[in-house]
This record gives sequence, structure tokens and C-alpha cells, in this order.
Amino acid sequence: MTQPSALSLGGERFSALYHIRSSAAELEARARDICVEQTVEFPEALITSTAIRDQIIGQIESVEEIGPERFAVRISYPIEAAGRELTQLINVLFGNISIKPGIRLMRLDLPESLGQEYPGPRFGQQGLRTLLGVQDRPLLCTALKPMGLSPAELAELAYRLALGGIDLIKDDHGLTDQGFCPFEERVRRCADAVARANAQTGRHCLYLPNVSAPAGEIDSRAHFAKDAGAGGYLFCPGLCGLDAMRRLADDDGLGLPILAHPAFQGSYCLSADSGAAHGVLYGQLNRLGGADATIFPNWGGRFSYTEDECLDIVDGATREMGRIAPIFPVPAGGMRLERVSEMIDFYGPEVILLIGGDLHAQGGDLVASCRRFETLARQSSSAIGGIRSMK
Amino acid sequence: MTQPSALSLGGERFSALYHIRSSAAELEARARDICVEQTVEFPEALITSTAIRDQIIGQIESVEEIGPERFAVRISYPIEAAGRELTQLINVLFGNISIKPGIRLMRLDLPESLGQEYPGPRFGQQGLRTLLGVQDRPLLCTALKPMGLSPAELAELAYRLALGGIDLIKDDHGLTDQGFCPFEERVRRCADAVARANAQTGRHCLYLPNVSAPAGEIDSRAHFAKDAGAGGYLFCPGLCGLDAMRRLADDDGLGLPILAHPAFQGSYCLSADSGAAHGVLYGQLNRLGGADATIFPNWGGRFSYTEDECLDIVDGATREMGRIAPIFPVPAGGMRLERVSEMIDFYGPEVILLIGGDLHAQGGDLVASCRRFETLARQSSSAIGGIRSMK
Repeated sequence: MTQPSALSLGGERFSALYHIRSSAAELEARARDICVEQTVEFPEALITSTAIRDQIIGQIESVEEIGPERFAVRISYPIEAAGRELTQLINVLFGNISIKPGIRLMRLDLPESLGQEYPGPRFGQQGLRTLLGVQDRPLLCTALKPMGLSPAELAELAYRLALGGIDLIKDDHGLTDQGFCPFEERVRRCADAVARANAQTGRHCLYLPNVSAPAGEIDSRAHFAKDAGAGGYLFCPGLCGLDAMRRLADDDGLGLPILAHPAFQGSYCLSADSGAAHGVLYGQLNRLGGADATIFPNWGGRFSYTEDECLDIVDGATREMGRIAPIFPVPAGGMRLERVSEMIDFYGPEVILLIGGDLHAQGGDLVASCRRFETLARQSSSAIGGIRSMK
Repeated sequence: MTQPSALSLGGERFSALYHIRSSAAELEARARDICVEQTVEFPEALITSTAIRDQIIGQIESVEEIGPERFAVRISYPIEAAGRELTQLINVLFGNISIKPGIRLMRLDLPESLGQEYPGPRFGQQGLRTLLGVQDRPLLCTALKPMGLSPAELAELAYRLALGGIDLIKDDHGLTDQGFCPFEERVRRCADAVARANAQTGRHCLYLPNVSAPAGEIDSRAHFAKDAGAGGYLFCPGLCGLDAMRRLADDDGLGLPILAHPAFQGSYCLSADSGAAHGVLYGQLNRLGGADATIFPNWGGRFSYTEDECLDIVDGATREMGRIAPIFPVPAGGMRLERVSEMIDFYGPEVILLIGGDLHAQGGDLVASCRRFETLARQSSSAIGGIRSMK
């Protein structure tokens, strides 16, 4: 075939760091295979166009041996291959090679020009603090559950949680638009309940309904929720698509913060030899997708992540990414009040603490349990020197 | 807390089969944990509502030991927890437990009533055959590539591939809306080229552009493509969301077949101990998402799937699922003409053979290589007794 392509790209490239399992002898072929698979996906020998070979195909930027049969390889791609589309950016980074064992996406680096295509979170850490009027301690979050309660019952819970001083009250991610708990009635009632509590406390507690929904209904639910007084959104990019979250974040008619939930994403991290590292999946990708905070299972809870994996998420959530703001890590998954101090020691004060069931397990009054949660967070934050001195 | 829930569900349940890695002693607790995690996600002891305990929480339907520390466990959930939302159905099946190692989703079973919420593929195997007018051999598919060619160059390729007798010509999944190959120009030119070839051959070759796109642009690209004469769509549910594909399939204003591509889904299958089995991911879920055919990497190609894993995909693509039609398996990923006979032996004639680069690697004329592809497929299909005798 003739390929007299007049292709002329700008020369700017973005890159990804991969960990590759390979013998030293095979490494170059394996890395080169990624360069081809993620771009032209065509036998290299058959590509007669010098322009395509030189400009489109991935390029190996660096190779480092990191262990027995383990290499860290940085590969770059032309920014024009991804353009302004987050879906295609992810496709170039890890589309086909997600199917190949022994390749793990560890990190991505975008040049300034490509970063401008992705505004990222509308609020980020500082914006969310400003919205809540809370600067001097970690933020407090909880979930409305269990599934099966009626909208009126959930609203009563929301009222008491807000009265107790919770900053962010989200729907459980299992609440969508079930017949036993319809979206619109739930959102109206819960938003009203939180507003009523805010009027009593003078605080700015936000109610974040779950707008994870069928593809054609996300927008309408998000707009309904905003009109009903919701203060933000819970969203599951693993169920609905990362770019659907990006669209929510970019919608100037909404302008509310987004909490990303990891449902259906977990298996992507579970093998150390494949998938994506925790930090890139829950941190960097969620930031590109416009999340202001990223929920993940804390170590030592109902799930199995290690301390290092959790720190990798913090790194992905906060590391420098051009104009894309740092977002809050939200360690969760069976957290208990008795661990608040330890969690703040571990994460520092720039964290959202998400405690669900344990607030109910304290016995006595739910409002009192929430107040205790706040007191613990404030005390532990002071004990490590508070927010200001951390900066 | 008081939970005087008046919950009253219909009693019908859907179920999933999980493989769980566990000691025999811990199995019941692990299985029970799934029942709770996927529904109420709340300490069971704190749920005072009998209605929620009895009706919402998952129920263990069967347990079978399948190996050392390996159990097959069927768990059922109330259909009302998932309702008419595919996103939420997947959330209940595997949302949070995707994060837990040692649990693999093997299969899902929907009762008739829930199946009605999901029409599935608009065409399926038989519908696609009717559309193409090809009943007597496996269908032939190829991809337009490499990335870097201009729309005019890709259209010239499309013309020759259609002239040679290919049934389905899809965009490479890396072609989206890049500046060097804009979507609209590419689709117009390629659709025209295929129509020109069809006018010469009298065949019904379909051009399937890639409509994987940012969340707000999928619909407009799909409609533009239809108006321009495209015959179907290529779509990557892993990049754009499975429900976005379902929406394309359900749109009566489109009414074109969909080929699902596995980009960014692969890591979900790579560990035998977690994620989803190949058959449920590429087969059952893609059918619920409205795909008419599912592309996956054949064994023995550039990827690493085994023969058994490929057969599991065929099972997921074709097993009985109420009114949801069987769809075509599309083994791909470095397939070569010399393997056509072996692939038809292995898959039988109800298969779409997808060969990309190797058609170009034959040397000589591309049209002639395509004709050889068809001849090989027809001969191999006759050799195993043809389509009709298989039924």
C-alpha cells in the first residue's frame, strides 16, 4: 500500500510511565510493542510513511530496571493522537495494552498545552474548603443508608447528620432511582432537611445526591438536584464512564463539587502486574475527570489496600499536574471513630474523613455521635500542628 | 436509629455466580459479606427493619466447592434494587466487591421481568446476517488503519477492502476526531467509498465508524454518521461507559448495528481471582449493553487469552438470556489469513473473522487479499458442514 501521508504534527508529546514484567533480553521488544499497539496498531514493517513512523508511533523515553524482571519504562505519544478527548487520551495511554498481562500504568504526565484541554476539578481542595467555610480541620463526610429506607427516613437521617456537624452528606452509591426510593423525592426531601439543619447551625453542610444514572439521564438528574438545593454530587465513573463525570464538572450550569466513588473500578488495581496503579486510577484520572475528592478504601478497613497503596492515591490526588488542582483523598470503607486520630496522623489534615455505619454504631443519639466525630477531628488535627502549619 | 420501613418488594430476584477464594471455615462469612456489601452496605446488626433484612440484603442461593480454597457461590438480589438502570444493575452485581480480592464475577442470571428492561442487541447474529445478506459463511471484518493516514487515504483503503468482499469495515479504535483525521470528513469519505464499492459489487458491505467520544458528543457523531451513510458503529464501552453503548443501541433514530471493542477493559479479566470472567465481561454485559458483536483477542495472537477463555466469551455471547439475542464473537488481535481455517474449526461458522494488518502483509493487491480471505472462509465453513447443518 502507498501511504504518501502529508502528516505534520507539532512535536509535543505526553507520556506515561509503565511497569513492565519482562526479561532484560525481551524488554526492548515488549516496550516497542506498546509503542505500536497504542498508536498505529499495525505491523511496523508495513508502514511506508516516514511521517507516521516518526510522528505517530510511541517513543521509548527512558528505561530503568526496578527489580528482577521488572522495568519502569516511560513512553511518549504525540498530543495530537489524544487531542481534546479524555476518552481518547485514556485509549492511547492504556486502551489495548490493558488486555496484555505484565504491563501496569503507573503515572501520566501531560505537557502544559494538553493540560489546557482538561480543566479538571472545578473546586479542588481549596475551593471545597471555601464553599464549606471550613479551613481549620479535616472535612467530615458520611453516607445516607441503608438501601431500603424511604426518602422521608433518609431525610430524617440527613437532618440529624447535618445538625451534628457533618460537612458532606452523600447518598450511598447504591441509591439511584429505585421505586422504593425515587430519586426526585429523595433529593428534594434530603436537600430540604439539610437546609433546615444549616439554618439552625449556621453551617454550610452540603448534600450530595448520587447522580450515577443511565447515559441519557445524568444531566437531567444533576440539574434537578441543583434546582432542589443539592450542594454537590456523588458519581461513580466506573459505572457511568470517566468522561461523563468530566462533563458534569465542566457544565457551567451546574457548578457544584463532585465526589468520585470507586464502584466497579477496583479490579483494575488488584494485580500488581497489570491494570493501573492506585494513584493514577483514583488520583490522576479522577482529577482529569473533574472530581474534587476521591473516595477509596482505607487500609485496615473492610477492604485490602495497603498503606503504600493509599499513599499512592494521595500522591495521584495531589501531585503537580499543571493547572489541574489537587483534590481531597477520602479514605473510607468501614472506618470508625476510634481511628480518626490515626487517620489524621497518616493523611495529614488535608483529607475528608468518611464514616458511615460507625456513627450509628455508637448507640445513643446520632447528633451526639457526629459532634464527637468533629471534636475528634479537630483535636487530632491540632495535635499534629493543624492545617496552617502543614502548608 | 428507628427504621420503621414500609418496604414491600415483589419478591423476584436476579442472581450472580461468584467464584470466591476462601477457606471452608471462612466461606460463609465471606459470602454473607458480599450479600451486605452489595446492598445495604451497613452493619447488619444495626438494621432494625425486618423488611430491609428480609427483602433487600443479598441471599446465598447455593454454594459449591470447586477446588482447594475455591467456591462457586450464587447470590440473589431483589430486582427492585437494580430496576431499569444498567448502571445500577452492574453496581449491585459487582460495584464495591470489585475492590475486594478473591471474588470473581462469573455469570449473571436475570429473570424474565428484569430482562424486559434491557432489550439488548437490536440485531444480534441473525439480524446482522440479514442486514448483510450473508447467510452461508462466517462474516468478514477488517479495520481502517494505521492512525496517521488522512481521511482520503483511509477512504481509498475502505474502497478497496469493500471491493474485495469484506462485510464489515470498521475504523481502528484509535481513530476518533483528531486534527489530522477529523471525524466528519473521515466518515463522509469512507461511507461514500464503501457505497461506491457496493454499487460495483452488489454487496452490502457496512462501514462502521468509531463513535467512542466525549460524553456529550456520542449522539451527535452517531447521528452524523448515519446521515452520512455509515452502516453501523464501533464503540468502546470501557472508555465511554457500557450504558452509553446501550443508549446508542436503544435509539430508534439510529437503528444501526454495534461492534463492541475491548479497549481499557482488559485488566478486568487478567487475574483469575478477581474481576469478571471473560464471558460475562465481553459476552453477557456487552449484550445487555446492546452490542451486536463483541471483539476480543483470540488465543495465539498478539494477546494472551487461552482457548478456554475465548470459549467462555462465546458462551457469554450466545447463552440463553431470555429475549436478549445471541451476538457474534469477533476473535481478533493479530489474526492471519493462514489461521482462518483453524478459527472456523474452533468457533464454528457463527463468527465474525477480523483480520487487519495481515491483509496488507500479503503483498500484491489488497483487493485480491480480501478475495482470498473470503474464499478461505467459505471453504473452511463448507469443510465443517456449513452454517445450516450446524443449526
